Amino acid sequence: MDIYTDYVSTIRTAMKADPYTRGINEINRLGERSLEKGFSFEELNARIPKDRLQPGLKLFSEELGLIPNFDQRPGQHPDFAYLKHTNEVENHYIVSMFVDIKGSTNLFRRYTPETVLVITNTLQRAAIHTCLIFGGFVHRLQGDGLFVYFGGRNVSVQEAVKRALQFSSVFTYFVKNDIKALFEQQGIEAIFTRIGIDLGYDEHVVWALAGIGEISEVTTCSLHTSLASKMQSHAPSNGIVAGHHVFQESPEIAEMFAPVSRRTNDEKHRYIYQIPERKFNYTQYDFEWLVFLKRQSFIATDFSGNLHLKGKRAQSQPKVLANLAPVASQSKPYFG
Amino acid sequence: MDIYTDYVSTIRTAMKADPYTRGINEINRLGERSLEKGFSFEELNARIPKDRLQPGLKLFSEELGLIPNFDQRPGQHPDFAYLKHTNEVENHYIVSMFVDIKGSTNLFRRYTPETVLVITNTLQRAAIHTCLIFGGFVHRLQGDGLFVYFGGRNVSVQEAVKRALQFSSVFTYFVKNDIKALFEQQGIEAIFTRIGIDLGYDEHVVWALAGIGEISEVTTCSLHTSLASKMQSHAPSNGIVAGHHVFQESPEIAEMFAPVSRRTNDEKHRYIYQIPERKFNYTQYDFEWLVFLKRQSFIATDFSGNLHLKGKRAQSQPKVLANLAPVASQSKPYFG
Repeated sequence: MDIYTDYVSTIRTAMKADPYTRGINEINRLGERSLEKGFSFEELNARIPKDRLQPGLKLFSEELGLIPNFDQRPGQHPDFAYLKHTNEVENHYIVSMFVDIKGSTNLFRRYTPETVLVITNTLQRAAIHTCLIFGGFVHRLQGDGLFVYFGGRNVSVQEAVKRALQFSSVFTYFVKNDIKALFEQQGIEAIFTRIGIDLGYDEHVVWALAGIGEISEVTTCSLHTSLASKMQSHAPSNGIVAGHHVFQESPEIAEMFAPVSRRTNDEKHRYIYQIPERKFNYTQYDFEWLVFLKRQSFIATDFSGNLHLKGKRAQSQPKVLANLAPVASQSKPYFG
Repeated sequence: MDIYTDYVSTIRTAMKADPYTRGINEINRLGERSLEKGFSFEELNARIPKDRLQPGLKLFSEELGLIPNFDQRPGQHPDFAYLKHTNEVENHYIVSMFVDIKGSTNLFRRYTPETVLVITNTLQRAAIHTCLIFGGFVHRLQGDGLFVYFGGRNVSVQEAVKRALQFSSVFTYFVKNDIKALFEQQGIEAIFTRIGIDLGYDEHVVWALAGIGEISEVTTCSLHTSLASKMQSHAPSNGIVAGHHVFQESPEIAEMFAPVSRRTNDEKHRYIYQIPERKFNYTQYDFEWLVFLKRQSFIATDFSGNLHLKGKRAQSQPKVLANLAPVASQSKPYFG
């Protein structure tokens, strides 16, 4: 997607500049460092400043009319940060999302640790920047992955769910297309995402300060935060799995959710959690993020099927998603 | 282990006070809240203050002559925190450890979210307190789990490795014995740990500021941090898996490491990472933490085989670990 051009080109530059790849010296053992330096972390910081959207993504943000908030502090959701100074807890709904980026350990086979640092941090910056645009709160960085919340005191549940689905769909498309193509050009096994999303309503979510003193964060204790993490591990490569509450709050796109058991052909994957004595059966769904993405007002599809930002220029082009909807609805339940 | 008595009794109290368990009201659907409150988060904070070791653990700390540092800030290892204000990177060895606590999602079947919060936070406090005693740096809280570093500028590699093995062994013993017994008394499926540990030398570890602005942490980019995380997922229930570098720095206890392939009877589990063209084959080992623990100077074993802190009282008892060594060495390679 053109919105990520600057991130992709930075990763490409770092890959090409890597001393191993350039074959400048013989590498006999892992980790031996070359005197020739590759693309440095300092160069990355100059090229993709941490707190500034790159031009393509900035345009995207403007089209959406959303202003990212770069002042977030991880582990301190602004609506619940006050709990840091109390012994109290608060019940409040939240959408929890785990974004895992898999396969990056393979990068150490080909690149120096500093090049790997540049590649993974560029990806992480793309993820964080996109998340901020959609109003997500980056709760925790987990290696290459993210644990993100959507929602809060002044956001409706449906809006939070929609934003979560938009962010996860855009980011998955980026990894599945732009990043995959780049990695394949370099002859490296592609990395991929797995995303799990769930919603807990007020009565399911307790916000409290976890940890000790400075080693602490205002976090949620909720079945549905735990389930989001579990659903992430049930997602296929570049797939998104969401819980029943997410499905329930998305009535207009209900046809884009299919129980995971339909993909795996195994009924025991239908429910992610059951409490037989309470007749509680909680379904997990594969989310057809590509269909969803194509239906977003900000996305246009070109003749090759590639997605683009439907900016002012794009809007004058003839082929936009509305034309594709009939094709999409005939397709199989899962596109991942 | 008697050092955890206060943590265990707090969890027991919270379990017994839970409104669901007390059967005060009929629970028709998950998450319905009772007017009767259970053991509250506020009570937990009064009973197990976050920044104070409980008496048993405090005694343990004194026996070891170690003073925990409660001023740590997660994501800012004191030796590398200066990188927060630079574009630089630093190469420096580190021991990375991932402690995962599995099975806590089951708690939501039986308890209210606030009781689950109290239980998981008490466990987390026990983990953090123990980690601090052994000089670990809590880099990140991950749900119930922890990502911890051992080592730094003024600690030798061997010392860091030893402390990491001590912490992980003591904590695993606590979960496998004290916590398991408590959960079984309540008729709940026991939770368990999985731990992965690896060491990267200076040339393998790049320290840098990852993330964006406030959403950032000084972290390591290293094959061996990534492998520690992978090894955690290869560990059996209540098991510890460590990388070849950890083995290599532990010559005095080499017999306590056995390639994972020996347990699984599958040669493909011997190496956690291979780069054929560089003839790089990195072995992962099951660590016999119980044998190791029994050999520690601070541990005594009673006639029932239970471990105790070898304090002043314990030292006057006849049966200490020295007597058990022959038994231990005849045992099977893995005790998990």
